[in-house]
Amino acid sequence: MPDDIERTVSGIGELAPPERTLMGPGPSDVHPRVLRAMSTPLVGHLDPAFVELMDDVQALLREAFRTDNEWTIPVSGTGSAAMEAAIGNVVEPGETVLVPTNGYFGGRMASMARRAGGDVVEVDAPWGEPLDPGDVADALADHEPDVFGFVHAETSTGVCQPNVAELTAAAHDHDAVVIADAVTSLGGVELRVDEWDIDVAYAGPQKCLSCPPGASPLTLSDAAMDKVLSRDDPPRSWYLDLSLLEGYWGDDRSYHHTAPITNVYALREALRLVAEEGIENRWQRHERLAGALKAGIEAMGLEMNVPDEYWLPSLNAVRVPDGIDDGDVCTALLERYDLEIASGLGDLDGDIFRIGCMGRSARPENVIYTVTALGDVLESMGVAVDPDAGVTAARRALEN
Amino acid sequence: MPDDIERTVSGIGELAPPERTLMGPGPSDVHPRVLRAMSTPLVGHLDPAFVELMDDVQALLREAFRTDNEWTIPVSGTGSAAMEAAIGNVVEPGETVLVPTNGYFGGRMASMARRAGGDVVEVDAPWGEPLDPGDVADALADHEPDVFGFVHAETSTGVCQPNVAELTAAAHDHDAVVIADAVTSLGGVELRVDEWDIDVAYAGPQKCLSCPPGASPLTLSDAAMDKVLSRDDPPRSWYLDLSLLEGYWGDDRSYHHTAPITNVYALREALRLVAEEGIENRWQRHERLAGALKAGIEAMGLEMNVPDEYWLPSLNAVRVPDGIDDGDVCTALLERYDLEIASGLGDLDGDIFRIGCMGRSARPENVIYTVTALGDVLESMGVAVDPDAGVTAARRALEN
Repeated sequence: MPDDIERTVSGIGELAPPERTLMGPGPSDVHPRVLRAMSTPLVGHLDPAFVELMDDVQALLREAFRTDNEWTIPVSGTGSAAMEAAIGNVVEPGETVLVPTNGYFGGRMASMARRAGGDVVEVDAPWGEPLDPGDVADALADHEPDVFGFVHAETSTGVCQPNVAELTAAAHDHDAVVIADAVTSLGGVELRVDEWDIDVAYAGPQKCLSCPPGASPLTLSDAAMDKVLSRDDPPRSWYLDLSLLEGYWGDDRSYHHTAPITNVYALREALRLVAEEGIENRWQRHERLAGALKAGIEAMGLEMNVPDEYWLPSLNAVRVPDGIDDGDVCTALLERYDLEIASGLGDLDGDIFRIGCMGRSARPENVIYTVTALGDVLESMGVAVDPDAGVTAARRALEN
Repeated sequence: MPDDIERTVSGIGELAPPERTLMGPGPSDVHPRVLRAMSTPLVGHLDPAFVELMDDVQALLREAFRTDNEWTIPVSGTGSAAMEAAIGNVVEPGETVLVPTNGYFGGRMASMARRAGGDVVEVDAPWGEPLDPGDVADALADHEPDVFGFVHAETSTGVCQPNVAELTAAAHDHDAVVIADAVTSLGGVELRVDEWDIDVAYAGPQKCLSCPPGASPLTLSDAAMDKVLSRDDPPRSWYLDLSLLEGYWGDDRSYHHTAPITNVYALREALRLVAEEGIENRWQRHERLAGALKAGIEAMGLEMNVPDEYWLPSLNAVRVPDGIDDGDVCTALLERYDLEIASGLGDLDGDIFRIGCMGRSARPENVIYTVTALGDVLESMGVAVDPDAGVTAARRALEN
């Protein structure tokens, strides 16, 4: 069959990706125990043994989110799928949705809310700054939105939103449902869903949980789920329809779609590591390790883009020195050091490097290596930095 | 911190699922090389090394689909996500969508088409039978649909739709875009996307490709993609918006969402196994192995639910003997033999067993084991079957 022979794809060899150190905005380095979990032979998605594993994952996710929400599940997709599950189910056509403008992911919220049929209104803040509670209160009063979405940890700017409980209280005064983007905070940065009265939160597994992407955490309060289950029309996605997923993750365990079994295995193992460490210890570790990274970066002569009050340990935004092309630096780090960091996005494109310090990547070896490599590459490009001072400062910070 | 101690989830031990033989409607048994690929440390989703792997996967997928479609990608989710990506992008609000009624997945097509804003019309056939080309031609003439969706391999009924080229020709006579559900045929049953003039096809990785679910094949012709890219309004899902995904999988390689990196690794390895075997050899193997399974089932005294002309080798629908509860049989097989098969769905609930024979599960050891176990369990329930005759017939069929 010459047709067959012609069509045979040749030259696609063994899977052999380079060995990277992942200090970008995610994925982060994955623990060997989690990788091993992914090589576990599969059971069916309706197997009683898998149903038990689903219960485990839900219990562990509740612990990580610090919530008692019954409605806590991994969504079958990457973080943006969990984000769209949140917005697409909670927002009904014609509802008003208040979103922030201070980063890339606020913009994505707006796009998803519009596609869900929502009318989007905005509360403004510049990229690189958090929302001001006064501005949020004003926007709530002006627009009386049905839903208020905000980004707890902005991966595009390295800003951690403070005063979350104040924002949710203001939103609830106006009967708005609060959706929090916790993609880059869950498992790495203080996040207290119940205590802070967040109605809906979602996250990515490949950030501070250090789990390969593919099954993404989502939690909804009973009140939020009541809103979802009493919609007039079904949500616009069948795949992400929580009223249908309720049949699978709830008591019925009825078939909806085939869950990404292996990703659920991996998430379970990644969450076991979180539980073993303790969620508060984990927050402290991220602050300590990213603090050492920041100390090293500043001591070498670079500038952080975000003041300490809003600093997001899991994502460090560093000013690109004048006259330097950020892309060239990222490429040099990848090619010469097998080290991944990232450029800026949107309003901060070209202005910042984004250096993650997440989950298993929040380790002394990664921090020291990153400071060393970044200093060396910038020095080789003629930037007046002092890599030795950077490494010394990072080492001292790690000793504390 | 007593609060912390209280919250610690205990009693969630090492990941140790039972070792099953997977002969249900998917997932199928996964090859050790694919499991090993899943334990590979990650690179970033924008790493140049990952971009090369993406090219590999696209090339291998084209070979499996037998298409030259540029637009051939894995969607970041399970098979239903690829299905919704197909329907949600191709169908525009107000368009008429013709779907079949002869199985569970035709119904799902209808639900997704409605959520995309389409007006659904139906071409009827009973569950367990294929579409009649005459009925399809009549429905096309009656409704002049913009889109015609059909199921090539109905996982709920075990029917393989014959005359595909005839259906697509009829649809194209009426300028309808043709979407084929190939979830349970890709990689196991003859499927020729280009030769049969299918515009859009999608599949699940956990069926005949024997890959863990999480990244799901989708292919669109240039004409179909032109329709998608010239929509008046964006599709209702941001996550599955192909015009945005075009930026990531196309030449730009710009960020859209974090791809499920590990699932892409696995799919690449699963597709390498397909390429090594040769796609036509693989179709023949499925027919031969499932043929042995069918011979064993019939020789033991059970009845197939679908005549040979429409028989789907990858999913064998077997009549449940009178007086027997299908769920009891499935449970006994799982508990006593660690063997997964499935019950019927929808119109065939309680009437059939669904026994998969897909990918790596289409092996002599699985076939003989399934015939043996099913015969023994039914015999133990007092059904007049002859397991020995079944095993003998299956063995003989395998010798041919």
